[in-house]
Amino acid sequence: AGDSILLAAVSLLSACQQMYFTLNVGRARLKYKIAPPAVTGSLDFERIFRAQQNSLEFYSVFLVTLWMAGWYFNQVFATVLGLVYLYARHKYFWGYAEAADRRITGFRLSTGTLTLLTVLAALGIGSRFLDEYLDLHVAKKLRHSF
Amino acid sequence: AGDSILLAAVSLLSACQQMYFTLNVGRARLKYKIAPPAVTGSLDFERIFRAQQNSLEFYSVFLVTLWMAGWYFNQVFATVLGLVYLYARHKYFWGYAEAADRRITGFRLSTGTLTLLTVLAALGIGSRFLDEYLDLHVAKKLRHSF
Amino acid sequence: AGDSILLAAVSLLSACQQMYFTLNVGRARLKYKIAPPAVTGSLDFERIFRAQQNSLEFYSVFLVTLWMAGWYFNQVFATVLGLVYLYARHKYFWGYAEAADRRITGFRLSTGTLTLLTVLAALGIGSRFLDEYLDLHVAKKLRHSF
Repeated sequence: AGDSILLAAVSLLSACQQMYFTLNVGRARLKYKIAPPAVTGSLDFERIFRAQQNSLEFYSVFLVTLWMAGWYFNQVFATVLGLVYLYARHKYFWGYAEAADRRITGFRLSTGTLTLLTVLAALGIGSRFLDEYLDLHVAKKLRHSF
Repeated sequence: AGDSILLAAVSLLSACQQMYFTLNVGRARLKYKIAPPAVTGSLDFERIFRAQQNSLEFYSVFLVTLWMAGWYFNQVFATVLGLVYLYARHKYFWGYAEAADRRITGFRLSTGTLTLLTVLAALGIGSRFLDEYLDLHVAKKLRHSF
Repeated sequence: AGDSILLAAVSLLSACQQMYFTLNVGRARLKYKIAPPAVTGSLDFERIFRAQQNSLEFYSVFLVTLWMAGWYFNQVFATVLGLVYLYARHKYFWGYAEAADRRITGFRLSTGTLTLLTVLAALGIGSRFLDEYLDLHVAKKLRHSF
């Protein structure tokens, strides 16, 4: 646990961001007078609601790729990408809240970052897998051959 | 893994609770005759559906703050707060199922508990961060100065 | 972290599956001309959207039971069940995309696998709990009495 302190900090920050998005959906309910359990009736409310829902849809995937990239590839790399992702989600949320078209820049940055985290995690896990299960130790063998 | 047994138990319990909520949405579909993929058409169904959706929205955030508070602050504290959270969600779900207004008590307890878990996690991570990265060891220094 | 390599691989695979489902919702938006933030207007789109939403609803629960079963019961068992779950979700998603009735086979397999993972996790956590907190060491005592 002590070795994952940066991942822990980014995860906690991302949890706060999700709570902040949810809080803003609550505020939009009051502002546009959408009483629960309704989730439609005002396009302004619906955009904010969809922005939060979309961020939430990607949240578990983000946490998985962040921790896997951090554990099996490199913690600092994963942390920096995690912070970029949170920034992209912030941009996406407030862009979407203004107009449906303005969600695109933030969304592209967020999926790009997520793809990179996934690739790093796959590289890390793949390399560890080759070492542990197939005993390939590619790096070691290369060293020994010189 | 062996050190996180209480967090593991609360997490598994919370996963069962989520499955239980989802099961009740399925039952409400039958009772109020809302055939998939529809999610509207009966206010009674919509309340149960929103209760489950809202619990789900907070679920990843709950897991993150539970584990971070448990790993970096104190496992027993985090476990007790986790159990309070599950109780609050239970109250929220069945309150909301009856009437939209009756969701509020459980909701407030659940967000209060979540806020406390977040604060404890932040304190734990912050203190560990100061120790490891800035080498401040606040507690140690205070001891040495006497 | 190095000991959980199989769980990590299944988790990353499951994250890719979730992203793939989300991508297909985006494609369905274009195909059936459902502009964001709307999520209704075409039954074909709604089925694909609900298929992704339902997979997402179970995703956190899946991750919790997978890791708890893998850590506290047996990693290889949990991994195999995890792969069965991903196959079941694949079947469910494409079945639901075709017709609401065709979602059922995949759904039953997925909830069956999830239930099994939950039971294994509960057995593993329960047995570890008895050992650590109540000092029962059931297995050891049985051995000693012979």
